[in-house]
Amino acid sequence: MRNLTVRLARRPTGMPGPETWSIADEPAPEPAEGEVLVEVKAISLDPAMRGWLNEGKSYIPPVGIGEVMRASGAGVVLHSRDPRWQPGDTVMGGLGVQRLACVRGQDLEAIDLAIAPFERWLGVLGIPGMTAWFGLFEVGAAKEGETVVVSSAAGAVGGLVVQLAKRHGCRVVGIAGGPQKCRLVTETFGADACIDYRAHAGLGPLRQALAAEVPGGVHVYFDNVGGEILEAVMSLLARRARVVICGAISGYNDFANIRGPRNYLNLLIQRARMEGFVVFDYAARYGEARAEIVKGLADGSITAREDVRDGLDSFPDVLPLLYTGGNFGKLVLRP
Amino acid sequence: MRNLTVRLARRPTGMPGPETWSIADEPAPEPAEGEVLVEVKAISLDPAMRGWLNEGKSYIPPVGIGEVMRASGAGVVLHSRDPRWQPGDTVMGGLGVQRLACVRGQDLEAIDLAIAPFERWLGVLGIPGMTAWFGLFEVGAAKEGETVVVSSAAGAVGGLVVQLAKRHGCRVVGIAGGPQKCRLVTETFGADACIDYRAHAGLGPLRQALAAEVPGGVHVYFDNVGGEILEAVMSLLARRARVVICGAISGYNDFANIRGPRNYLNLLIQRARMEGFVVFDYAARYGEARAEIVKGLADGSITAREDVRDGLDSFPDVLPLLYTGGNFGKLVLRP
Repeated sequence: MRNLTVRLARRPTGMPGPETWSIADEPAPEPAEGEVLVEVKAISLDPAMRGWLNEGKSYIPPVGIGEVMRASGAGVVLHSRDPRWQPGDTVMGGLGVQRLACVRGQDLEAIDLAIAPFERWLGVLGIPGMTAWFGLFEVGAAKEGETVVVSSAAGAVGGLVVQLAKRHGCRVVGIAGGPQKCRLVTETFGADACIDYRAHAGLGPLRQALAAEVPGGVHVYFDNVGGEILEAVMSLLARRARVVICGAISGYNDFANIRGPRNYLNLLIQRARMEGFVVFDYAARYGEARAEIVKGLADGSITAREDVRDGLDSFPDVLPLLYTGGNFGKLVLRP
Repeated sequence: MRNLTVRLARRPTGMPGPETWSIADEPAPEPAEGEVLVEVKAISLDPAMRGWLNEGKSYIPPVGIGEVMRASGAGVVLHSRDPRWQPGDTVMGGLGVQRLACVRGQDLEAIDLAIAPFERWLGVLGIPGMTAWFGLFEVGAAKEGETVVVSSAAGAVGGLVVQLAKRHGCRVVGIAGGPQKCRLVTETFGADACIDYRAHAGLGPLRQALAAEVPGGVHVYFDNVGGEILEAVMSLLARRARVVICGAISGYNDFANIRGPRNYLNLLIQRARMEGFVVFDYAARYGEARAEIVKGLADGSITAREDVRDGLDSFPDVLPLLYTGGNFGKLVLRP
């Protein structure tokens, strides 16, 4: 049996291109005691991946040169040397960008395909789902009747933030790129409005378009993008607003030129706060979030949207879609 | 009886100069029913004054053209048409930059000269003192054993933050301009260290000097200045740090060019928060803070430092000292 792997060949500057990766046909790995061999069925492509390619300290160490690219994945157990798992079990965990993963049994979680297919366990039931739930309710402390704004509202995290906030009785305004995504955000996810940032380029027009949709100001802003959009929303904060810093996708490929919101003193004027978080800190409580999302999927109040691409060797071409807005829902690769 | 007033003649761009003000000899005001005539003995000069001169919405409305400049002050009641007050009572409140103030009795607070002289009621027992206490303990949630960094550490607010944090068992590092101020911060206020930002100009040197003093990172940063100093401290945050935005004196005279901290994503990496506040929101609880500060003054664990200047007509020359670092402790004008 052979494995196919995507390894980091060199650190990119700017957008990672084909030269960033080496794709290799390799012998299948052999599980050691306590390890499990998994056939990967779905690989999660996440905006945070770009950060893992940079040298230096962040919330987790960077991927090393020559290492298999880090990724969440879901698959089927082929062979187990951990008594917890049997061949045929369906699991998810940090499987990497490859066809066959050899991982410690203790690092895997069981998934139930009767509840959702592989790709959904990487989306609304996986890290993006947990990120949406804990960011919105724990960090953002969103409450019924408040106005929630979320950027990348058609994306894996943002799309669920929209739906969770609606479920909890908030007014929700999304921000997304292009009319097709905006329709997804309002018609499918149920946002009260969605601002197309491409149709309102520049801080002034963006601010004006948004202002019309948040007459009482913004109580919670769930920020996935940073840059000018962050600044526009921060100019419209309500008293005691919470700005949740989940990511800053606009700057990930030009990290050195990221700038902070020039109007951060609005935090003072509005007695507001800006807070960052890392979803892994809430791992012990994922069950709480997942229970609500499973319920929402079952009663139809939550719609999951995945964008599934095929072929492990297309990884170098598919990853950049996250940064150009080319995907439509949670981006998943089937190896 | 005649009054002498300092009124706003025109809105300044940049540093307010003599042309900003008109100084006039005027008839004494006549108190209406419910009002009190106060002889002003001490006027508080505060960094926030610069913001009040700008047009547009902030946490309080701007001072209008032709109006007496807004200021906290302390003085003696001359004549009262409010049953709460008698001639000879000592009071403080929003008296403005003038010799005689006519204000509503309900807006005044009694002060006790046996506890502290007029100028101290405008410093550690006044708004700066309340700002230090609520910013450090309520917004910053500083706890024993944590490392607290404070900028403008020789100033009215910063100097008290240093002393309060030491009283509560924190490691405290001040940031101030020049060796004389740094000595005040360590020797008189008791900080464990003080970084002279003038001796370490630029983000890199400043960061390096500070890093040596905060081996476990910064748990609470009390920011009075913004700019590069904010950025340097934000590069050294500890996990779950709190950045308290009290002011941004470095930008007050060039508001259009204020920039946000480029490294705000450290909030994410460190699961930290940045929060602004306005002290007036805590007015109902000032007694709590004042009780501790009075106790600290009495037992010698808190030292108050005022920089008292004379002559109402020197106001235009004295105010800019706040922005050039020319004052040494709480700046007070005796009219």
